[in-house]
Amino acid sequence: VIQARAIGGLPEVRPGDDVAALIAAAEPALSAGDVVVIAHKVVSKAEGRIRELAGIEPGARARALAQRLGKDPRQIQAVLDESDEVVRDERVLICRTRHGFVCANAGVDASNAPEGCLILLPEDPDASAQRIRAALPNRPAVVIADSFGRAWRVGQCDVAIGIAGLAAVEDWQGRADRSGRELQATAIAVADEAAAAADLARRGKDSGEPVAVVGGLERFVTGEDGPGAVALVRAREEDLFR
Amino acid sequence: VIQARAIGGLPEVRPGDDVAALIAAAEPALSAGDVVVIAHKVVSKAEGRIRELAGIEPGARARALAQRLGKDPRQIQAVLDESDEVVRDERVLICRTRHGFVCANAGVDASNAPEGCLILLPEDPDASAQRIRAALPNRPAVVIADSFGRAWRVGQCDVAIGIAGLAAVEDWQGRADRSGRELQATAIAVADEAAAAADLARRGKDSGEPVAVVGGLERFVTGEDGPGAVALVRAREEDLFR
Repeated sequence: VIQARAIGGLPEVRPGDDVAALIAAAEPALSAGDVVVIAHKVVSKAEGRIRELAGIEPGARARALAQRLGKDPRQIQAVLDESDEVVRDERVLICRTRHGFVCANAGVDASNAPEGCLILLPEDPDASAQRIRAALPNRPAVVIADSFGRAWRVGQCDVAIGIAGLAAVEDWQGRADRSGRELQATAIAVADEAAAAADLARRGKDSGEPVAVVGGLERFVTGEDGPGAVALVRAREEDLFR
Repeated sequence: VIQARAIGGLPEVRPGDDVAALIAAAEPALSAGDVVVIAHKVVSKAEGRIRELAGIEPGARARALAQRLGKDPRQIQAVLDESDEVVRDERVLICRTRHGFVCANAGVDASNAPEGCLILLPEDPDASAQRIRAALPNRPAVVIADSFGRAWRVGQCDVAIGIAGLAAVEDWQGRADRSGRELQATAIAVADEAAAAADLARRGKDSGEPVAVVGGLERFVTGEDGPGAVALVRAREEDLFR
């Protein structure tokens, strides 16, 4: 049985805040087998990963893209600054971030940001997850999540962009089906499915709660922090959709 | 709070079986606000969506692709027969199915199939979901799920390929954030996140259980069957990754 519940009562997070301490205060009953899923914005804000639009000087490429897309050139510049590669630039910028994630606008977002500001993804979300895990009572697994669109499907799903102490993937390679044939489905993205389950719980209210706890995944929780969400990045040479 | 639990005790499903009756017998306590998530293979088998490899005559294109990919040409022919379009044919066939879904091998799979056979996706998974919903006690929502790979991420997640009575998407378009700015995340793929949560519950054992019940999504469950999973198919003209 999988159970996902939102944690209520977290205050608005500001730069310098201790996210682990805020979570521990709001939810004293965390256990070692739990998975704490945190919306990345909370982590980004606490880490000061915020840019003021007023301080951004857009370059020529940002101005050209902004004109074509009907966007603020300063916002486009911020997206380019977070990107290793622009994968598509029709209608919306699909970018590969410096972490390797491919998503709209390199994860740069103005919604729920302070006035006149943009929120960026954490610099190193796996390291952020590890820090928060180490500071939480009983050291539950920690996932930092963001909502990503999908290439061919409508709507966004939450996925893991930072992981500490949870298997990113359950690898079925080499396992057999009931008839002894090798399975074609070789790897289930457990951490992404956990982020999705947490998102459903977090959306119980219109405003949304930034943190949820997922129980029932004990067999995927590890003592070691593990390789993190970078294990979910498909290698460039295996990317059929650049 | 979201809760997902696998339903145990379902027998191996055979062509002609009544999936709703099997589920109702295994789980008598379904309620109207529940979401019953069913692995598509169960539905496909019951509907006889099975092809014998021995009866497939591969054409020239299938033979050429099979040689290049190191696959059985009859299996490739079955994939082509289920596809409207082959989106990529390096290493693996990424196809657009006749329903519009983009996935590996058009959903055609040999694992957990009868010996010498392939399992296809249901002909019309939304209609299948509607039929099963209508026949289940208390008429819970029904989702038919399959595991899809993702363009840029390692591993597969379960997604909804058939839906009856559950909002496919929670549309946030026009809603504002806490500061009154319009939100950029406009649509959450609720049905896909429900399929993902159910998948985590179904994988409690190695063998996997084919059906799970997700509770806590009552506000997304509708009396009408609704538009189904076709609402999750991104229109071809909006597809940046053909």
